[in-house]
Amino acid sequence: MESKKELRKLISMRKKQVPLEERRRRSVPVMERLMVLPRFRKAQNILFYWAMQDEVATQDAVIACAAAGKNVFLPVVDGDFLRIRRFSGQAALTPGESYAIPEPVEGSEEVRISDIDLVVVPGVAFDMDGGRMGRGKGFYDRLLAGASDCSQGGPYKVGVCFDFQVVDAVPREAHDMLMDAVVCESRTEIIRNDNRVCSVFGIRYPIVSGGMVWCSGWRLASAVSAAGGLGLLGAGSMRPELLREHIASCRAATDKPFGVNVPLMSPYAAELMEVVLSEKVPVVFTSAGNPKTWTPRLKDAGVKVAHVVSSSKFAVKCAEAGVDAVVAEGFEAGGHNGREETATMVLVPQVRAAVSLPLLAAGGIVSGAGMAAAFALGAEGVQVGTRFALCRESSASEEFKQLCLGLKEGDTMLALKKVSPTRLIKNDFYAQVQEAEDRGASKEELVELLGRGRARQGIFEGDLSAGELEIGQGVSLISDLPSAADIVRSMVDGYRRAVAGMEVL
Amino acid sequence: MESKKELRKLISMRKKQVPLEERRRRSVPVMERLMVLPRFRKAQNILFYWAMQDEVATQDAVIACAAAGKNVFLPVVDGDFLRIRRFSGQAALTPGESYAIPEPVEGSEEVRISDIDLVVVPGVAFDMDGGRMGRGKGFYDRLLAGASDCSQGGPYKVGVCFDFQVVDAVPREAHDMLMDAVVCESRTEIIRNDNRVCSVFGIRYPIVSGGMVWCSGWRLASAVSAAGGLGLLGAGSMRPELLREHIASCRAATDKPFGVNVPLMSPYAAELMEVVLSEKVPVVFTSAGNPKTWTPRLKDAGVKVAHVVSSSKFAVKCAEAGVDAVVAEGFEAGGHNGREETATMVLVPQVRAAVSLPLLAAGGIVSGAGMAAAFALGAEGVQVGTRFALCRESSASEEFKQLCLGLKEGDTMLALKKVSPTRLIKNDFYAQVQEAEDRGASKEELVELLGRGRARQGIFEGDLSAGELEIGQGVSLISDLPSAADIVRSMVDGYRRAVAGMEVL
Repeated sequence: MESKKELRKLISMRKKQVPLEERRRRSVPVMERLMVLPRFRKAQNILFYWAMQDEVATQDAVIACAAAGKNVFLPVVDGDFLRIRRFSGQAALTPGESYAIPEPVEGSEEVRISDIDLVVVPGVAFDMDGGRMGRGKGFYDRLLAGASDCSQGGPYKVGVCFDFQVVDAVPREAHDMLMDAVVCESRTEIIRNDNRVCSVFGIRYPIVSGGMVWCSGWRLASAVSAAGGLGLLGAGSMRPELLREHIASCRAATDKPFGVNVPLMSPYAAELMEVVLSEKVPVVFTSAGNPKTWTPRLKDAGVKVAHVVSSSKFAVKCAEAGVDAVVAEGFEAGGHNGREETATMVLVPQVRAAVSLPLLAAGGIVSGAGMAAAFALGAEGVQVGTRFALCRESSASEEFKQLCLGLKEGDTMLALKKVSPTRLIKNDFYAQVQEAEDRGASKEELVELLGRGRARQGIFEGDLSAGELEIGQGVSLISDLPSAADIVRSMVDGYRRAVAGMEVL
Repeated sequence: MESKKELRKLISMRKKQVPLEERRRRSVPVMERLMVLPRFRKAQNILFYWAMQDEVATQDAVIACAAAGKNVFLPVVDGDFLRIRRFSGQAALTPGESYAIPEPVEGSEEVRISDIDLVVVPGVAFDMDGGRMGRGKGFYDRLLAGASDCSQGGPYKVGVCFDFQVVDAVPREAHDMLMDAVVCESRTEIIRNDNRVCSVFGIRYPIVSGGMVWCSGWRLASAVSAAGGLGLLGAGSMRPELLREHIASCRAATDKPFGVNVPLMSPYAAELMEVVLSEKVPVVFTSAGNPKTWTPRLKDAGVKVAHVVSSSKFAVKCAEAGVDAVVAEGFEAGGHNGREETATMVLVPQVRAAVSLPLLAAGGIVSGAGMAAAFALGAEGVQVGTRFALCRESSASEEFKQLCLGLKEGDTMLALKKVSPTRLIKNDFYAQVQEAEDRGASKEELVELLGRGRARQGIFEGDLSAGELEIGQGVSLISDLPSAADIVRSMVDGYRRAVAGMEVL
């Protein structure tokens, strides 16, 4: 990692390789990205922090913002004080080699930082976590010192820069100005958003990896959490002592928040909960049971609680139980499933209409496009099972993973409806189930056919013939085994592409 | 309808009621709407047609565009000629009371209209069909006269105006400048877009009403088409002579394109096709059969053909058959359904990946939010059944409609899987089916139980107990019986809201 001084030299060198005319051209997408940020569009009073002489994008943005009717402000040094003065669009600007933004005109309004909605900070160098080399930090501190009466930590801060000003990581000692978003030529990175799922769980992307039996161990959960999502340990396939080990391993692997999924129908549910509580796990997702049973005790202990539902009726029960978030899981999902067979496309708007809780969608979501679809329907986050079951860190057997990569539409089916509806891959075991169901087999007969340990046998041990192979419909869309971090990254990228590409009608 | 002169007087009067300062403030959202149009963002060479002295939005837009790096052009009168000259951002503009856009500076570049990507036309008065009172028409014609070498009818034309400049309908004789989009303070209306479903069928909104048995007669089809969508007659419940009558009635009710849905398993399929061909129906949607059977003959006759599929495998067959578009209909849909039970959330991206045809999504889509979700997944249009089955113009019985309004999640179920999977409302007839299926009844037994004419009995005649009641899962999201036009409008509005509200991550 370079020092601050070395970094500054590097950036300065990169800049010299880009002629001014070229920089001006490349500043256009930066400004366009800035101007379409919802936070920017909503802001009325915008402060351009230290509109630097040679940051051409800044001058263009200042002109365009004033023309677009925003109130644009600039900081002005006044002896020992830093004041904010309104930039008047009437002052003639002379774009040119120097790109000097003039001082605000005489007699222009003076305002308080608490009146500012958004600060644009042109960059020396940013990383994508919002860190910035702190040139002008002293002024910035003095400026924000006046922000003590701002609600919610002061104005929203957006760093703008060219691609050549993006460094992989800004050294810690230079990380002194943390942005809420960074906009450069080729991408926009939102660090602080208004997403409630992110706020509740303290995560960066509202992507949760499902707590899948025999897939979701500490390797998968910690990888998802480290990548900015929320990784869940799947306690459904764990005895209490094993869960304790996985929690410890997960903690050792990442300092980011993670959670445990406890299916309430597990014979060890109570003991698993004791482990979760004694280990002070920050998040618990409960499923397959009544949310009222455990939510109060978990909440009392400071645990964030989400519950998985397959209908809006159960979602209302979740709200009554006081959960922090609800997961609406549709018919497409793998493994255990709702009796009403409501698909994600219908379930999500239904649950959205029924409760005001932070809402995650699940079932059939394997990509950023699916995530965008879920958000269009009213979700604020996604719980993703199948996609994470098929990644490097998943503890499913290699045999199971390879089988899944070859599956097509129609290769999974909801079965065992008289017992507990479960989505299964059509293997030999499934054929036995279907044969029995077709001839009207009773629940008892099916329970006996199912026996015990078949999911472990299939998913974990790789017995593809006799095992109970649980996976979601979305498996047909999957053909690779990336890392969990790659999945998080590609879902976020895909989501952004889908949103940006939405057709205007 | 007022005359052109009266209209101009009215607009002028309205304008006097809005002080300049207020107009300037109100021009901000107009410009923001303009600048976020994908067509605008893609355009590099933008002509501001007749930047009128008192159109404050225009001046702001000219300044902002030039600042954003667009090449901005203005028309200049030169004797008998109208020339286009590049506006130089270096020319000082003095915003103020007069808002006079200066003539392009001496020595500035002259260009041809064929180099222009987009023309912005500040409005005297627009209606939402893109009509404009033709002030300055003479110049405009002369300008576009140079556009004969433009591909696709010349540059894209966007009218911009204040809300007070929007009139319900501009008189026909004033309709002499037709815009491709109109942007005002409170809304954006895209008249010509790049949507392939709209292009193929010659419609304004890519919303097709499904050809539902006993619901989709000429009243529904013509109402949907008149509202800008594509209405389909459901020939599945019609004998050939009745279809001929419905086609005639549909034609009498609207001059817009409409279509016929022919389920290929209908015993009358061949005769229905002869009616369609002899009546020169512009569009046919086929379903429940092989797309290769009829597509060549229909295409030879100039009919646009779409085929409904439940899997990507069938979608590939559609492409081979040469259809114009494909409908991917998921598990959520009412009535006959695919055997593989693939839900819309998974099916749409799967079909999208398999074929490059214009793609409509169906199944579970009852709102603009659902439409946005489908588009995020890769669809370019939607076929909507359930929502249109429950509107005023649907020919379903009042009893059926009222029953549907009270349905909740889980009140429909996919049944008759051994015969042909069909989504039914859980009524007495369904209970009989379920009882039979639970005890392993054979296909023959189920066919006998189904009998004949049950869908008519239930949907059309209102026998809610013994009838076969077909409706989609989305029914649980519906609680009113609006007109078909209201449905089209609210889906378009809802789509736009959903797209505009997509969270930035």
